Amino acid sequence: MNGAHALIRTLVAAGVDTCFTNPGTSEMHFVAALDDVPEMRAVLGLFEGVVTGAADGYARVADKPAATLLHLGPGLGNGLANLHNARRGNVPVVNIVGDHAIYHERYDAPLQSDIEALASNLNGWVRRSRHTAEVASDAAVAVAAAVGPPGKVATLILPADVSWSDGAEPASPVAAMASTPVAEEAFERVAKVLRSGEQCALLVGGRAVHERGLRAASRVAKATGAKLLCETFPTRLERGAGLPAVERLGYLAEFTQMQLTGVRHLVLIDTKAPVSFFAYPDKPSDLVPADCEVHGLAIGADDVEGALEALADVVAESETPLLQDAGRPDRPTGALNGETIAAAVGALLPEGAIVSDEANTAGLWLNGATAGAPRHDWLTLTGGAIGQGMPVATGAAVAGKGRKVLSLEADGSAMYTLQSLWTQVREGLDVTTVIFNNRSYAILNLELSRVGAGAGGPKAHDMLDISRPDLDFVSLATGMGVPATRATTAEEFTTQLEAALAHDGPNLIEAIIPSGF
Amino acid sequence: MNGAHALIRTLVAAGVDTCFTNPGTSEMHFVAALDDVPEMRAVLGLFEGVVTGAADGYARVADKPAATLLHLGPGLGNGLANLHNARRGNVPVVNIVGDHAIYHERYDAPLQSDIEALASNLNGWVRRSRHTAEVASDAAVAVAAAVGPPGKVATLILPADVSWSDGAEPASPVAAMASTPVAEEAFERVAKVLRSGEQCALLVGGRAVHERGLRAASRVAKATGAKLLCETFPTRLERGAGLPAVERLGYLAEFTQMQLTGVRHLVLIDTKAPVSFFAYPDKPSDLVPADCEVHGLAIGADDVEGALEALADVVAESETPLLQDAGRPDRPTGALNGETIAAAVGALLPEGAIVSDEANTAGLWLNGATAGAPRHDWLTLTGGAIGQGMPVATGAAVAGKGRKVLSLEADGSAMYTLQSLWTQVREGLDVTTVIFNNRSYAILNLELSRVGAGAGGPKAHDMLDISRPDLDFVSLATGMGVPATRATTAEEFTTQLEAALAHDGPNLIEAIIPSGF
Repeated sequence: MNGAHALIRTLVAAGVDTCFTNPGTSEMHFVAALDDVPEMRAVLGLFEGVVTGAADGYARVADKPAATLLHLGPGLGNGLANLHNARRGNVPVVNIVGDHAIYHERYDAPLQSDIEALASNLNGWVRRSRHTAEVASDAAVAVAAAVGPPGKVATLILPADVSWSDGAEPASPVAAMASTPVAEEAFERVAKVLRSGEQCALLVGGRAVHERGLRAASRVAKATGAKLLCETFPTRLERGAGLPAVERLGYLAEFTQMQLTGVRHLVLIDTKAPVSFFAYPDKPSDLVPADCEVHGLAIGADDVEGALEALADVVAESETPLLQDAGRPDRPTGALNGETIAAAVGALLPEGAIVSDEANTAGLWLNGATAGAPRHDWLTLTGGAIGQGMPVATGAAVAGKGRKVLSLEADGSAMYTLQSLWTQVREGLDVTTVIFNNRSYAILNLELSRVGAGAGGPKAHDMLDISRPDLDFVSLATGMGVPATRATTAEEFTTQLEAALAHDGPNLIEAIIPSGF
Repeated sequence: MNGAHALIRTLVAAGVDTCFTNPGTSEMHFVAALDDVPEMRAVLGLFEGVVTGAADGYARVADKPAATLLHLGPGLGNGLANLHNARRGNVPVVNIVGDHAIYHERYDAPLQSDIEALASNLNGWVRRSRHTAEVASDAAVAVAAAVGPPGKVATLILPADVSWSDGAEPASPVAAMASTPVAEEAFERVAKVLRSGEQCALLVGGRAVHERGLRAASRVAKATGAKLLCETFPTRLERGAGLPAVERLGYLAEFTQMQLTGVRHLVLIDTKAPVSFFAYPDKPSDLVPADCEVHGLAIGADDVEGALEALADVVAESETPLLQDAGRPDRPTGALNGETIAAAVGALLPEGAIVSDEANTAGLWLNGATAGAPRHDWLTLTGGAIGQGMPVATGAAVAGKGRKVLSLEADGSAMYTLQSLWTQVREGLDVTTVIFNNRSYAILNLELSRVGAGAGGPKAHDMLDISRPDLDFVSLATGMGVPATRATTAEEFTTQLEAALAHDGPNLIEAIIPSGF
């Protein structure tokens, strides 16, 4: 069989049975081979940023990687921002990047470029398959590299002749690396700190914010009086009524500093010490208080959940976790703004929902309003490259198989990867998108003053203003086949959200927020 | 003054007075400094691919670079495909890529990544400004590097603290490199070939397809009996009635081979020997006939136009160029397809128009139908990364100051950078967009069989089919404030195109092509 066929069979055998695609000529043999392997689901995107973001969202929910199919260097370039986000969230992704045939390289045809240079930006795993007989084993290694732990972006560059030539056989899966048990000294060191009587905080992230880790962390916090904090941008936070409650660190440095005030010992579990998202003149980059000591318990390849449970067994043996009570806000009335939208979401969020949150400034109230909603998953903007939310929602819905996905999206961010809506229709995905339309890059209005750049003149403000012309998201959604409505009051929004969530298939609500927040 | 202010003043002093922007927090001081320098025009894009493609289109028409303002690695990543196209067309672009403050790097904040790795993909000029006192001179060198000759993509990485700190002064422009005169031996060698009596062809590209070079090339061809050919994807071809006629090489390798049949000597002027755009099993990559000798006259930093004129003075002293007669097709009637659309464009193209051509498969008839239209510029997809046409049209209109821009765009390609429409409204640009809506990646249907991947099963065909759901470009355009109409017959299209071209400001026609071509 040819290289493409063996590659796809190898991916499927290794558990990678979904491929998000945006192919071109150099990938045509891969495309043709899809019909030989019925187990592989292929999901087309109209733009590579949708493809890579969907692979990210898929893996966050499925807990295993999807593949992407990308067209040479420019295809990888277009997908790079969302791969950056995946990398920052330790999310496994297996990129298949088609390239020219090896013998064609020396002609420097128009689409040729240094794909390895681009892929190296992702600090993951990169290999170029050079022989048809090796492409399958390369793919098996790529999947294992992606899975980690921790999850990585693996990029396999597939020259067209390696793909189309015969002489390949599928390869068996390569066993994923086992996580490393954390040494007893580490628990004991941390246990000693927790029993010191000084104010401690546990900061959990990564895999530690799934139920198993959170239950252990909550027991530790309850038994020792430590604060339980969650990193600012978790990959997938399991939360809601009946799960341990956890306080997320704020995006603004000032807020995080407030949350850490008085903490003398910060214990890190699958996350790094908090730093400012950006640098600001005369403000610290390191957000850990000066008199606070940082202690790492587990990260990276460590057995994070095992470490937390072992720690709990040491310091909180008979303790039970502190679970969130059920409770929803009332249906909101009056003006539509970030606060009333959050209340409506909290009032209506279905059990088992997946929330893709790229609401940015207008989303400040969401955390509080949904804390007591039925159990759900919360996916955030892990790497700061906007345009992630809608693709992630798309991939999450593919993986979620019937779970409702709520895509909460700022207007400015939405315009990076709006093509996601088309894939949602094509695949019949249960995604309800809410566009927070405040007609500005509101976060940047805030940042303009925070960076000390002054009040800003008319040209500066013009760069942050996206109301000229106004974007009409109902028209935009309709143009891609997604039924859409517009809400201008809290009542309208709540009614529309209820109807949208009750319906199968994608839909969209444009929430007009004249106040900006 | 701070680094940002000095940087912008330096750019303006060097002739770079237009900046296409998609900023974030790390660029806020640059944004704030825009108000200090009224000479700098700032044009906002909703996505970086629009920004970089617009800078490309601008430079093609203005014959000088624009700047871009991009947000860290992910911003450059999103802009990379159209920078790849610019690189392939030797189009000068000056990227300003904001980065974290230097002292913030060690905290590895979420948006940090290896920007140099990404920029290295562009084979141009890259520098990171490390000191506020040096940022202005770095910018002056960046502009000179971009200008060339040949034009390059120059990327200046601007850490936030270098931008916001005081202690900078504007720098004087750095003189652009002079082009290198071509040695007399070269003319004589080529002249000898042209007089050999064997079939010769001149293949012109780059700067040689502007009027000055074309007139000289046409004289040479006429005097010596050589064929006059133009590269497949010229950056900006000056053409129409009264200008020298030139035959463009076809995209399909088979077609190029046909055009070169019988040619024993191929003389290259500012272009490379033709190669197949992609590799195909059992088809050659090198499209030069086996018994044809290739002779380079001028390329890169050479004085291309001077070389052509000197050659003409040697072999065609008293010869005049062969100029294209005026002539337009009749207004088409009947079914709407690539052929009738081309006829309508040929019938109506205004004098001085700029055409941005990303019509792909459906555009096969455009070349012939517009050959005798009044003088105009033709901009093509130089690097093969689709999603270039609409951004290029946007930037061309900014540079064109009142010249009509016609953006001919395939449906699949349009969906990569459709956000261009919004910038066109915002800036009141005279762009008429025609979407060739055949509801498929038609080129890939063709390529599937050309690469020998067989007829393709249902899954393969599904990857090339964008009719599920149908895209409604009238709704999509309306959503971004662009007036739009839909045409389903040649008569409707012609009437709509006439009205669109008569109107100021952007508008769009969705041309439905049920036949695919």
